[in-house]
Amino acid sequence: MKVDLNSDLGESFGRYKLGLDEEVMNYITSANVATGWHAGDPIVMRKTVRLAKEKGIAVGAHPGYPDLLGFGRRYMKLSPEEARNYILYQIGALYAFTRAEGIELQHVKPHGALYNALVKEEELARAVIEGIADFDRNLIFVALSGSKPAEIAEEMGVKVAHEVFADRAYNADGTLVPRSKPGAVIHEEKEIAERVVSMVKDGGVRAINGEWVELRADTICVHGDNPRAVQIAARIRRVLEEEGVRVVPMREIVR
Amino acid sequence: MKVDLNSDLGESFGRYKLGLDEEVMNYITSANVATGWHAGDPIVMRKTVRLAKEKGIAVGAHPGYPDLLGFGRRYMKLSPEEARNYILYQIGALYAFTRAEGIELQHVKPHGALYNALVKEEELARAVIEGIADFDRNLIFVALSGSKPAEIAEEMGVKVAHEVFADRAYNADGTLVPRSKPGAVIHEEKEIAERVVSMVKDGGVRAINGEWVELRADTICVHGDNPRAVQIAARIRRVLEEEGVRVVPMREIVR
Amino acid sequence: MKVDLNSDLGESFGRYKLGLDEEVMNYITSANVATGWHAGDPIVMRKTVRLAKEKGIAVGAHPGYPDLLGFGRRYMKLSPEEARNYILYQIGALYAFTRAEGIELQHVKPHGALYNALVKEEELARAVIEGIADFDRNLIFVALSGSKPAEIAEEMGVKVAHEVFADRAYNADGTLVPRSKPGAVIHEEKEIAERVVSMVKDGGVRAINGEWVELRADTICVHGDNPRAVQIAARIRRVLEEEGVRVVPMREIVR
Amino acid sequence: MKVDLNSDLGESFGRYKLGLDEEVMNYITSANVATGWHAGDPIVMRKTVRLAKEKGIAVGAHPGYPDLLGFGRRYMKLSPEEARNYILYQIGALYAFTRAEGIELQHVKPHGALYNALVKEEELARAVIEGIADFDRNLIFVALSGSKPAEIAEEMGVKVAHEVFADRAYNADGTLVPRSKPGAVIHEEKEIAERVVSMVKDGGVRAINGEWVELRADTICVHGDNPRAVQIAARIRRVLEEEGVRVVPMREIVR
Repeated sequence: MKVDLNSDLGESFGRYKLGLDEEVMNYITSANVATGWHAGDPIVMRKTVRLAKEKGIAVGAHPGYPDLLGFGRRYMKLSPEEARNYILYQIGALYAFTRAEGIELQHVKPHGALYNALVKEEELARAVIEGIADFDRNLIFVALSGSKPAEIAEEMGVKVAHEVFADRAYNADGTLVPRSKPGAVIHEEKEIAERVVSMVKDGGVRAINGEWVELRADTICVHGDNPRAVQIAARIRRVLEEEGVRVVPMREIVR
Repeated sequence: MKVDLNSDLGESFGRYKLGLDEEVMNYITSANVATGWHAGDPIVMRKTVRLAKEKGIAVGAHPGYPDLLGFGRRYMKLSPEEARNYILYQIGALYAFTRAEGIELQHVKPHGALYNALVKEEELARAVIEGIADFDRNLIFVALSGSKPAEIAEEMGVKVAHEVFADRAYNADGTLVPRSKPGAVIHEEKEIAERVVSMVKDGGVRAINGEWVELRADTICVHGDNPRAVQIAARIRRVLEEEGVRVVPMREIVR
Repeated sequence: MKVDLNSDLGESFGRYKLGLDEEVMNYITSANVATGWHAGDPIVMRKTVRLAKEKGIAVGAHPGYPDLLGFGRRYMKLSPEEARNYILYQIGALYAFTRAEGIELQHVKPHGALYNALVKEEELARAVIEGIADFDRNLIFVALSGSKPAEIAEEMGVKVAHEVFADRAYNADGTLVPRSKPGAVIHEEKEIAERVVSMVKDGGVRAINGEWVELRADTICVHGDNPRAVQIAARIRRVLEEEGVRVVPMREIVR
Repeated sequence: MKVDLNSDLGESFGRYKLGLDEEVMNYITSANVATGWHAGDPIVMRKTVRLAKEKGIAVGAHPGYPDLLGFGRRYMKLSPEEARNYILYQIGALYAFTRAEGIELQHVKPHGALYNALVKEEELARAVIEGIADFDRNLIFVALSGSKPAEIAEEMGVKVAHEVFADRAYNADGTLVPRSKPGAVIHEEKEIAERVVSMVKDGGVRAINGEWVELRADTICVHGDNPRAVQIAARIRRVLEEEGVRVVPMREIVR
């Protein structure tokens, strides 16, 4: 029994610092590194890739909308041609740093509002996946577990890591409860840890309405924004290992 | 006897169109493709790389300052760490499109004010060349013929294409006469063609003060901004071929 | 009988030139000047305001999404707080140039996808109008004729210029036929001129399904992107004057 | 005996937070609010202006280079036309928020590398001051005490507040010791307070070489980046008041 722990990193920009990257890197196995559009810059990218290399963590690209002001968290209407080439540009930009540091680029996880838009816009999802495949068909696409984008990628012969969220409530159909709804975010550390174990060992979790949702958990998203988030990441890691789950980079899970 | 003809291309951005790329591509052998910082965007990059591929033209990255508003033509003071990683980012971004289209990335030519700054700031030049070597030691660095950056690259074991300018006057020491001085830019088509032949076949040209300047001409910079520039490029190509000079991509010259 | 002719101007950016501003200014009475977010820059703004002043044309702000790459033509999800303050920022920026040139700021017309989003998102429309009123309650808000945003502004005590489009087909409910549908854009110069006269003198026009749509036409949007657009603007101006309609800035119409 | 205390505020951007604005506002009398080019955004500008209003602090514009990535701290070569209109744009943008909140715009203080460039480039200084005067001849220009830009502004009939730095060493000619030199920045709280009192009450301070430098101190720059900076600001305020110096906005000093 294996699972990957991923986190969004390298989100600082110029003079602006964000995230406890070094701390959370002690607990994760895959780093999603921002590629300079919604966050990150070349110096931050270099440092983050180097840090991941030192800690033995796998690196992926975390491309987003061209919206630094909105941190990539605002929906933008992109054409498929735009999406495909925006993704390709950002993958290449991050790849340069992995190549300079002599490590592999493992995966691509779209950021924020773009990640969410993929679930709703099939044509957009297809374009993003084509952008990934344009670069390298062996890159792993990280998608919401059980979602349409995951399915499309599998049809297209692109590797997919099904992602689950440790601290988010699920609807009975496997979609995430929107952040605007009560109960959408789970704050209780113990509950988060239990849910993670349930997702990994039992293949699912209780939905917000009490029903059981089946979820494939190749990788679990954790956060490193603040000390408490890091503490939660540490606990998830510890509990998984206590339960006999091996925490490994997603390339050892998705083949 | 061989020489390369290079031109800056892919300088459109979003709704803004610039340059007669398709026309000038009929005469050149190497395309310097803008990488989205001073000009260019992912869709433009894809189209330009694809067009170059169709026309059998070699492709290089044309990175610049992070200054779209100034088109990369204004000096900015960068630290070596900034320069090295800005270059690396932009090379990676363009590389993604050459990889998607299945062609090689041949060279890197810094743009505008950055190109000029390299000649004056040794530490900056070193940082830019390190950025290139970080990505791939086989990339050719395009530098002002006989300049300090060319020399530094050679010392560092990075391939250099010495570049000359068809329409620019030279000082007796081999530097370009600044655009602000009278006579800096040569407008006469016939004179431009004669100078190009002189540089390639005789290994030099008359400086603005009448003295002879020796110049190594691996590649000649031509323009495609307007119909007249394209016409000049066409004439240069024709005259070179009439003189028995083979016009080939720089990778067949610099080894 | 009076009407205003407006056009989007000042859309150049840095080295990138767009639009035949000087030519189309011979026929219009109100200039919508881009404010540097989706198009335009401070030098372009200064020149455009100065040119409008010389030609005796009234000046308004033409704020857009923070999306130069998409030219403000792509929908972005903004919060009301974002919209209100983005508008205020852009109005202030343009106001500085009208103040420097000693002329009045007459109106505000949101650009592109933002203009369209207002029609669909009531809260967004309210926020944009608040942004305008925050700056000056006497500024005229230019809105799609008969639309919800126009109605909201009137309720809020903000002056509204109802805008009609010379070259666009209307649905029977007064909305514009989307550009993606056949027949959405009218290309025939004569037909455009006739429709304009119908809208101004008869208070409406035939919808795409043949029904009559009543439209209040305070101001007519014309274009200056290319020589043909300028020619159409000239014809609209001439036909209106032949029909005895006075073409005047919107501040002489909306009070 | 009177002096103003100013601080750079509103430097957050989107998701990125910077500065203890609210805390330092308890001790200062003039706020330099970033205008969205090197730092700040419309929402941050609105909040900062509102906070200044609540605290009874005068507000000025803090325009910078178009370089968010470099936080406006890197020299860029601007033409006078660019500088003049960039300043005008940014003043207008901030003015919109002061107008919306019903307060006056008091001053303009260029940021970072631009502030420093003015001291060295006379033509640039003139252009920036023209930009300020284009907007409003009553705005106060904040310049390095005794510098060339201060002199130029006075010749041009623009009000000047001579600024001194509490924590920086001076050369004997009244220029600042560059940060790269040892002893350039004074860290000792007590020493900072003593120097401030010396500058305000004795009209000068000891230069780094021990000589006496005469300095006109209309306004003193203090910082709010971190808790210690705020503590220093508090101490400066307290010491000045204990010494019988009235701390008031610069408009009560420069007339």
